[in-house]
Amino acid sequence: MTITITAFESSPDRGRGQARDMRVRWALEEVGQPYEVRLLSFAAMKEPAHIALQPFGQIPTYEEGDLALFETGAIVLHIAGRHAGLLPEDANARARAIAWMFAALNTVEPPIVEREAAGYAEGDKPWHRERMPMLDSRVHARLEALSRRLGAGEWLDGAFSAGDLLMVTVLRRLERTDLLDAHANLRPYIARAEARPAYRRAFDAQHAVFARRA
Amino acid sequence: MTITITAFESSPDRGRGQARDMRVRWALEEVGQPYEVRLLSFAAMKEPAHIALQPFGQIPTYEEGDLALFETGAIVLHIAGRHAGLLPEDANARARAIAWMFAALNTVEPPIVEREAAGYAEGDKPWHRERMPMLDSRVHARLEALSRRLGAGEWLDGAFSAGDLLMVTVLRRLERTDLLDAHANLRPYIARAEARPAYRRAFDAQHAVFARRA
Repeated sequence: MTITITAFESSPDRGRGQARDMRVRWALEEVGQPYEVRLLSFAAMKEPAHIALQPFGQIPTYEEGDLALFETGAIVLHIAGRHAGLLPEDANARARAIAWMFAALNTVEPPIVEREAAGYAEGDKPWHRERMPMLDSRVHARLEALSRRLGAGEWLDGAFSAGDLLMVTVLRRLERTDLLDAHANLRPYIARAEARPAYRRAFDAQHAVFARRA
Repeated sequence: MTITITAFESSPDRGRGQARDMRVRWALEEVGQPYEVRLLSFAAMKEPAHIALQPFGQIPTYEEGDLALFETGAIVLHIAGRHAGLLPEDANARARAIAWMFAALNTVEPPIVEREAAGYAEGDKPWHRERMPMLDSRVHARLEALSRRLGAGEWLDGAFSAGDLLMVTVLRRLERTDLLDAHANLRPYIARAEARPAYRRAFDAQHAVFARRA
């Protein structure tokens, strides 16, 4: 059955792989599944046809036969459950890898998104400069805990898993900030992930969407 | 095997069931699994023994034989995967229920937590009043999409699932605000969930921890 995902027709990140379709593309590349992409304008994302697939009017979605899914965590988990390569076979190790998926999305990502949003929604407000140290410190608290757990490990818990995949996409949101600099093992962790052939293929595919329009 | 979870020795919510152990207690009650609780002081949550279980120094954790898990989404999903009652049998319906779990934690909860945090971290700042409409509007955007999808349905997608369980615990964070009032089907949705016997048992169990100390 053909897998079809949705992505931005015109991604706000200009092809830097920060849009959330990157997570799904990467997961599909890791497990060697081909996929098609339906590009959506911002207007199309708010139309009933898309809202039926994605109640919050976002990208990506995932369609495969009768199944329609949203939420990158759920899509990546679905892919990982259907194909080998993203979760360990051992049941306990599998549950722990899934814990890292949720940790990436519910514990590490929210303060990073909050900090980002402050930049574009409140960057011109008189209070912005005074609030930034607080927003930075929330991110640092998560990064410090993550860095400590990662330690000298290559990945978060044994072999590369869907937990690492999501965590790296979350950390990449900080790549143009100096927040990663205080946690010496995090940039190398991101770099290891970005060196994976599946990552490269996914990155190049989303970048090509931007390049075609530019 | 005995299931042991951790919870606040002294919950900041004074027994209102807002701490995240409520999610795990409720899931275990839905599937009829007994569990033990180890209560932790705020100091104990930051000690190495707990950090080994929960890298971010939070509650709850879940221990069962050799397995130690953190992140309520992962714990609830683990429970739902092991016991009937929280996820549909049909594979596609199951994947969709899991999508609602991620939607609760990664799409609906973050703006609610951000708004809450503004109250306790910045409530005394000169900019607080001016920022609140923006924070409220982010929450409303999510609630509006959720309310529209729920429509006249009893639960988010067919029968009650782990997706509803997590979504209701997220929405309950707003119970003392007026943000739910603009979305007429959400308080009844919460009330239906709170009327479930498993919810009541879980609520009473966490409330008893507060009552014993009070």
